[in-house]
Amino acid sequence: MALLVQKFGGTSVGTPDRMRAVADHVTRTVRRGDQVVVVISAMGKETDDLLRMAREVSNTRPGREMDMLVTAGERKATALLCMAIADLGVEAESFTGSQAGFLTDATHTNAKIIDVQPDRIRASLAAGRVPVVGGAQGQSAQRNVTFLGRGGSDTTAVALAHALGADSCELYTDVPGVFTSDPRIVTDARKMEHITFDELLEMTANGCPKPAMRSVEFARTHGVELHVRSAFTWESGTVVTKESTMEQAIVSAVVHDADEAKVTIGGVADRPGVAAHVFRALADADINVDLIVQNTSDQGVTDISFTVPHGDLDNAVAICEVAGAEVGFTRVTAEPAIARVSVVGAGMKSHPGVAATVFETLAANDINIEMIATSAIRVSCVVAESDIERAVVALHDAFGLADGPVYVD
Amino acid sequence: MALLVQKFGGTSVGTPDRMRAVADHVTRTVRRGDQVVVVISAMGKETDDLLRMAREVSNTRPGREMDMLVTAGERKATALLCMAIADLGVEAESFTGSQAGFLTDATHTNAKIIDVQPDRIRASLAAGRVPVVGGAQGQSAQRNVTFLGRGGSDTTAVALAHALGADSCELYTDVPGVFTSDPRIVTDARKMEHITFDELLEMTANGCPKPAMRSVEFARTHGVELHVRSAFTWESGTVVTKESTMEQAIVSAVVHDADEAKVTIGGVADRPGVAAHVFRALADADINVDLIVQNTSDQGVTDISFTVPHGDLDNAVAICEVAGAEVGFTRVTAEPAIARVSVVGAGMKSHPGVAATVFETLAANDINIEMIATSAIRVSCVVAESDIERAVVALHDAFGLADGPVYVD
Repeated sequence: MALLVQKFGGTSVGTPDRMRAVADHVTRTVRRGDQVVVVISAMGKETDDLLRMAREVSNTRPGREMDMLVTAGERKATALLCMAIADLGVEAESFTGSQAGFLTDATHTNAKIIDVQPDRIRASLAAGRVPVVGGAQGQSAQRNVTFLGRGGSDTTAVALAHALGADSCELYTDVPGVFTSDPRIVTDARKMEHITFDELLEMTANGCPKPAMRSVEFARTHGVELHVRSAFTWESGTVVTKESTMEQAIVSAVVHDADEAKVTIGGVADRPGVAAHVFRALADADINVDLIVQNTSDQGVTDISFTVPHGDLDNAVAICEVAGAEVGFTRVTAEPAIARVSVVGAGMKSHPGVAATVFETLAANDINIEMIATSAIRVSCVVAESDIERAVVALHDAFGLADGPVYVD
Repeated sequence: MALLVQKFGGTSVGTPDRMRAVADHVTRTVRRGDQVVVVISAMGKETDDLLRMAREVSNTRPGREMDMLVTAGERKATALLCMAIADLGVEAESFTGSQAGFLTDATHTNAKIIDVQPDRIRASLAAGRVPVVGGAQGQSAQRNVTFLGRGGSDTTAVALAHALGADSCELYTDVPGVFTSDPRIVTDARKMEHITFDELLEMTANGCPKPAMRSVEFARTHGVELHVRSAFTWESGTVVTKESTMEQAIVSAVVHDADEAKVTIGGVADRPGVAAHVFRALADADINVDLIVQNTSDQGVTDISFTVPHGDLDNAVAICEVAGAEVGFTRVTAEPAIARVSVVGAGMKSHPGVAATVFETLAANDINIEMIATSAIRVSCVVAESDIERAVVALHDAFGLADGPVYVD
């Protein structure tokens, strides 16, 4: 008998039919002999609807009240799912985040979990029931309701799985798992059966949107096995575990991100503090700078390029122009039409030559590389946006990903 | 400085505009120097929407889960109203029923308040804030969320006013107060400035639908002053207090109820237990029998007539026919087209002659009386439904109610 945490996102429970389908899956799992704890998000677009109502009612929206409002969404979903499970003959009990023992800090709208004390969840399991917990919720030391922010249900599921010592945390979503590349672009992209946390983190940071990065980091830190799978086909998905010394795929996946733009500041004086001044100003404006590349200094001046989300491009350029006037650099240029392709693989750490293959493949396809950035398990290249699909297909092919992973010897 | 509990029903907060209008009234009250605690219902038809969703999702709807679901409605409303109040520069804090200290029994969907420990509400007031409490909510000893049932927000407001020692409990609604008669029928019906609990209870039990009877009973028991008033015109309404020895109106109001039907069982053996058998069977079927009149026994048999809600008539007749076969009575007749007119006044206790005036007035208008029932402060007559509007107008006129109350000397 396994103890499983099953987390369902908003799309998975967006309609009465979906609610019943999820209830059916949960009760099947229970009847198979496993114990199940469910974590559930608000139905469909409900969170958006609640945020819209708040905007309609008031220009002042204190965080404490926003959290009270938004958590109503998961609350409804937990109760409805419990009814649907009961309809199939299995007892279920809904729990708010605070009832489930989630203690958080008081950072309303984006609270962090401090502790999980799931006594009532354990009691519910011991009584043979299915506890259904509202995702992304908790209570602060001041006994106020808190919300963990968007994507917080994944974090709730992982933290609960850890606190309960669950065997696996199943994250049900609208895709069947994690693919070697985007199936809309690469027709022979393959669903991976296994992936490491590090690989998934490099992928979620590079245009593969699910699951929420914060929950993956939590799962890695605490060694909680994740299973990313479909709430529509119910097939087995992708299991995410700690890196094993055996069977490390040299290259696991090719991911891409076309939602970024590139900013270059040129003629930067190569002295301490200049880069710090620029990036502090960008951070203060809440602009999420991603890749940063600085070229070698040439006669005391250098260029710095970085990428930002498309929506922040104008703002970033304006901030750089102000900063340029303050610390003295000569020009700021913006290139909106770029995209990034990344090759990710836990095995490349001990297997040199992956970067060379990436560069050769792009060159052979006449794709110019504008920026390069690497981590221990990732090689990223910024290319023209118009080249991105060809780049992804060529790299997926070059590493033979459609046929299955190539492992380190 | 007064401490006021202000309760707003679903219609009063049904739209963003209404939310802002209520917030405006609350902040005006605070700026006038009073302390305010708000109790609020779910917005508009939200409770109905939630019940509909439950029906769509499942045929099995455990009370514990229904309460978790339905209380999401008030939760949203509290948070939104707090935002709207904050927008006007006054700090407000939302509280669920359990946060506000409402301890109830575990009768889900229709819980009873056991205790109110409003420590957090007191602290919120002491900090100069406006606490906004979700109506009709509480928590059981098992720490489950409970719902007090429809109309429970009035009860929440009255119980909270009592626990806090508030000076008045203002029940805001969509009518300006309690009238001497239905203004749709009696064009010169007058809004009463004062009324006693007993009078209001006789009226709510006799076709005057607001406020919820349970809350009026609670207010009477604990001596909480009620002020029934409008959330649309904001004018002063009707203040409900304990009976005073001074100034008791002989007749305060004429109310009517056309939602009932009459059942007569004839040829009933006049021996102990027969009536008990019939009314136990009706109670077991959850049929709310109202007036019961039994005629004097004539040669060992008697007739019993009673009224039931229209919707229960067929069922009541069927139950009586079964009971008749068991205890032996000869016939069951149903009269759907009846209505009841009641004259209510705290002063009639010490002022004989009201009943006589009622009967004379109806006779003078050629209105036949089918049943008569009285309490210490009420005279009710059942008449043909087609006569009811004439009966109401005639009695309102006979007691001169348009001109103001006639007091006992």
